[in-house]
Amino acid sequence: MKKTVLRKYAQLIAASGVNVQPGQEVFIAADLDQPEFVKLLVEECYKRKAKKVVVDWSYQPLQKLHYRYRTLTTLSKLDNYEEARWQHYVDTIPCRIYLLSEDPDGLKGINQEKMAKSQQRLYPVIKKYRDQIENKYQWCIAAVPGAAWAKKLFPELRTSQAIEKLWEAILSTSRVDEDPVAAWEAHNKDLHDRCQYLSGLGIRELRYKSANGTDFTVGMIPEAQFCGGGETSLQGIFFNPNIPTEECFISPMKGVAEGIVYATKPLSYQGQLIDGFWIRFHEGKAVEWHAEVNNDLLTKLITMDEGSCYLGECALVPFDSPINQTGLLFYNTLFDENACCHLALGMGFADTIRDFQSKTLEECRALGVNDSMIHEDFMIGSADLSIDAVCDGGKVVPIFRNGTWAF
Amino acid sequence: MKKTVLRKYAQLIAASGVNVQPGQEVFIAADLDQPEFVKLLVEECYKRKAKKVVVDWSYQPLQKLHYRYRTLTTLSKLDNYEEARWQHYVDTIPCRIYLLSEDPDGLKGINQEKMAKSQQRLYPVIKKYRDQIENKYQWCIAAVPGAAWAKKLFPELRTSQAIEKLWEAILSTSRVDEDPVAAWEAHNKDLHDRCQYLSGLGIRELRYKSANGTDFTVGMIPEAQFCGGGETSLQGIFFNPNIPTEECFISPMKGVAEGIVYATKPLSYQGQLIDGFWIRFHEGKAVEWHAEVNNDLLTKLITMDEGSCYLGECALVPFDSPINQTGLLFYNTLFDENACCHLALGMGFADTIRDFQSKTLEECRALGVNDSMIHEDFMIGSADLSIDAVCDGGKVVPIFRNGTWAF
Repeated sequence: MKKTVLRKYAQLIAASGVNVQPGQEVFIAADLDQPEFVKLLVEECYKRKAKKVVVDWSYQPLQKLHYRYRTLTTLSKLDNYEEARWQHYVDTIPCRIYLLSEDPDGLKGINQEKMAKSQQRLYPVIKKYRDQIENKYQWCIAAVPGAAWAKKLFPELRTSQAIEKLWEAILSTSRVDEDPVAAWEAHNKDLHDRCQYLSGLGIRELRYKSANGTDFTVGMIPEAQFCGGGETSLQGIFFNPNIPTEECFISPMKGVAEGIVYATKPLSYQGQLIDGFWIRFHEGKAVEWHAEVNNDLLTKLITMDEGSCYLGECALVPFDSPINQTGLLFYNTLFDENACCHLALGMGFADTIRDFQSKTLEECRALGVNDSMIHEDFMIGSADLSIDAVCDGGKVVPIFRNGTWAF
Repeated sequence: MKKTVLRKYAQLIAASGVNVQPGQEVFIAADLDQPEFVKLLVEECYKRKAKKVVVDWSYQPLQKLHYRYRTLTTLSKLDNYEEARWQHYVDTIPCRIYLLSEDPDGLKGINQEKMAKSQQRLYPVIKKYRDQIENKYQWCIAAVPGAAWAKKLFPELRTSQAIEKLWEAILSTSRVDEDPVAAWEAHNKDLHDRCQYLSGLGIRELRYKSANGTDFTVGMIPEAQFCGGGETSLQGIFFNPNIPTEECFISPMKGVAEGIVYATKPLSYQGQLIDGFWIRFHEGKAVEWHAEVNNDLLTKLITMDEGSCYLGECALVPFDSPINQTGLLFYNTLFDENACCHLALGMGFADTIRDFQSKTLEECRALGVNDSMIHEDFMIGSADLSIDAVCDGGKVVPIFRNGTWAF
């Protein structure tokens, strides 16, 4: 990919993505796949006067070794210097950029039990710090091609060609054109207008129906509103947490969901694919489920903690979204979640509550925002999906028809 | 390079290099060049029952950006979480492996002034921790090919071929043959025998002479002894700090050196080459010097701190060493220092003092071991170098004739 184009992408992430402020620190998490792009990104952050840019490199194959050889005890604790890093985030509120490039099958064969257990035990320690910075800092998840990921999408191509093709798909769906920053401003305006309309309807519940069997109702939190595109941190800085993004999303009412949903795309979870699955909800809780591929892993996901069987997000994305129009299945949630409507199991977003700035995290959760150590999107959008909103006073408003916006 | 051969090399580093002990942590510093080899090394450490293996990846091009854009103030301090990492080394005494692969010219154009100043200011903080672990932990420096480094050695080859050639050179000079661990045992015995002979002579000073102009005398510390190959940590664990190594070395008496030495190979210092240089010593101190290439950087090196103008090491390596026999100039000190005789400016090694285990670091330094934030080897060996030892009672013993051992 041409360096001039990549530099625009790096500028987009630094400017519109995390919106680096002068004197702020930036932490970038990246796999080893695209060091030259990481270099461009580091430079763009510095050009925006970042005080210090730290890159945390990771190499997915080492993960498997750690989980194979380390004891559950050492996997389940943070050393002092690792906790000190979290404390540094609390003290300095740096920007955080996550560059995804992993192999969707990269952790195949890992000891799922050990991984889940260690994450469960680590969570209370991490949560202590995470809750202190929740909604305070700017963050952005974006993608760069990894070799194995590219070959998964384009198995018929040589690796270098597959990587180039994946770059094209990432850059086009991320609106890296002539002037990406302006394109994102326009896109954000469109998403915000749509969210405003939805939030004004006074929706009490959403009803989903599709010929694939999906027949599902989920309750809304009266105090919640639809969000999409950029958001503003508690420090008052506007940022775009996902590049790309196409969704209008909301945190549903914990404990209010009935019926069955059928997944319409495979889910890449912890380096493995879960496919051909459905989940039945009762009183907001996943009570029955089955996956044709990796059913055990789906069970691990749903039973991870107390909150992982409840929903944390309902997101509306038309089936004709630019990402779905690429015709590609990305095997990566950042893209696939923006290809069609989805739900998420686990943690909800406190910042979907109106006026969340003046509420505590606990107050938001008490209104019905779910809490969990996980947040996993799964896709339920289809070409024939219809969604109705039942609003205050019982009025029914069509939201989706034939997989896309009805208004 | 074949995976079976690389695995042997990884085993050599884990077993003979750092000699990982069950339950010990291992920290590996590596550039991004050879992730698959790093994976093999991590696995070999785990097979020796390491408790936790942490890889600190680095990417040389980012260094230049940090020194360009960060202020001297932020470059000159460690954040709390970075100090906590050092404290962790003090508390847990992990093994440390340094895998070198950098481009010898990789930091060309960097702001030398800013880099030197920030390192000077950082040093007291790091020294606080370093002194606490000195001689306590096992460490090993070894090399893997980086693309730019390989092209520097073999500019006429395609990158992949150059990397393969550099692998061959690294593996052959590191004695990675049928049974590398056994080969290192034999090699260590040979080096230890030679050191024992030298240490028994009661050497008071060494006199160097070469047709290239070198005419130089350096004083010895009566309590010091020659060391070479593997050594034993204060925790009683045998390890090999350098792979490869060919030298018998000693820390000379601080303040006793007269005459001039001519470098016989370029010196790669902080990602830049210093070449065609000589240094004149008086009363142990570098008092005059000149380099045809990068004289300013040589000056920075010599004037880095109070101890950087004094010598910290005299190492004897025959000019017909296996490394010199490759006919390659490696542009990397780990190899070039083991190709011929060298001196080092800066810090001396306290563990060259007899019975150092029962002395403090301060006591060793009081005997004449130099202290500095730097330790930089430079090569003075030549095909005609002769070295005489003036021993107790004035007896003169020939040590080197025609560039190699005279005994």
